[in-house]
Amino acid sequence: MHFCSNCGATVTSRIPEGDSRPRYICDACNTIHYQNPKIVAGCLPLWNDRLLLCQRAIEPRYGLWTLPAGFMENGESTVQAATRETLEEACARVTEPALYGVFSIPQINQVYMMFLARLESDEFAPGEETLATHLFAEHEIPWDRLAFPVVIRTLERYFHDLKSGHFPVHVEDVLRHPPRTP
Amino acid sequence: MHFCSNCGATVTSRIPEGDSRPRYICDACNTIHYQNPKIVAGCLPLWNDRLLLCQRAIEPRYGLWTLPAGFMENGESTVQAATRETLEEACARVTEPALYGVFSIPQINQVYMMFLARLESDEFAPGEETLATHLFAEHEIPWDRLAFPVVIRTLERYFHDLKSGHFPVHVEDVLRHPPRTP
Repeated sequence: MHFCSNCGATVTSRIPEGDSRPRYICDACNTIHYQNPKIVAGCLPLWNDRLLLCQRAIEPRYGLWTLPAGFMENGESTVQAATRETLEEACARVTEPALYGVFSIPQINQVYMMFLARLESDEFAPGEETLATHLFAEHEIPWDRLAFPVVIRTLERYFHDLKSGHFPVHVEDVLRHPPRTP
Repeated sequence: MHFCSNCGATVTSRIPEGDSRPRYICDACNTIHYQNPKIVAGCLPLWNDRLLLCQRAIEPRYGLWTLPAGFMENGESTVQAATRETLEEACARVTEPALYGVFSIPQINQVYMMFLARLESDEFAPGEETLATHLFAEHEIPWDRLAFPVVIRTLERYFHDLKSGHFPVHVEDVLRHPPRTP
């Protein structure tokens, strides 16, 4: 950030009075420009014992597989964001979305909110940002071709919980690419 | 938003190619400035059968009572944000934070993430943004002096769940001030 979005003057990074963190502050109108983490909302779309993944048609991680998820927009709820992203990326409608994972990724200022959800049908298709959509059983998951550590973590938790049939809400941090033993 | 934070030129609100929502786009460098919901993280700090509330020393809702909560910062996790806010607003340390509520407030682009947590001790005190801190049993809660609808909702859910001893994660929207029958 170099300029004030309010008045166009330059900004300086300094700690405002009564605050403890540096913020960008306008040199002219003194507006304080706070920057905060963004929410990425998405689904684990289920069809019986299989899970719908999307192959990315955009960077980063073009060609790798991911769960349908994306930035939550102003004016919507977390559930709306998760189901909208599933519709946009996989042309898939889901029902009964249930919060399953809240994954903080502090090093990139993101919080993933992932919902377990049932596909309304087995009709789905790649959206504009997707090369391919496919239902995977556990033994078919392309573990070495997943796009992001948070996707690996989410799928690991899901297939672990699937054995017990108990799906608690996982609140975790994803701090780096987790080592995975095949 | 009037000016580009990257180059200082004017911005225009329009729908970028391949997008479906209007964004502020720089007229000179074409940077797209996305705006997304913010996370407010906080705690329900418990001391036996009582709950710690804070009386606000700042606007909005100066003088009204609230749970310790505030905007999540870049570089931290949701749990860190919730416990930091509890320390800042009530000088209170908590243990065992467990996610309890995810409340979307789409009309103000906020998502509250509230954690049940145990006070480490009954030592607490007003922080800089707090006039007073007090432990309330259910019958003592100042229902008509609570600061925000989301605080009312959170406390209603908590005291309802307290009867069953079962505390599921509530994922809800708070769309307006809920009517409350005494």
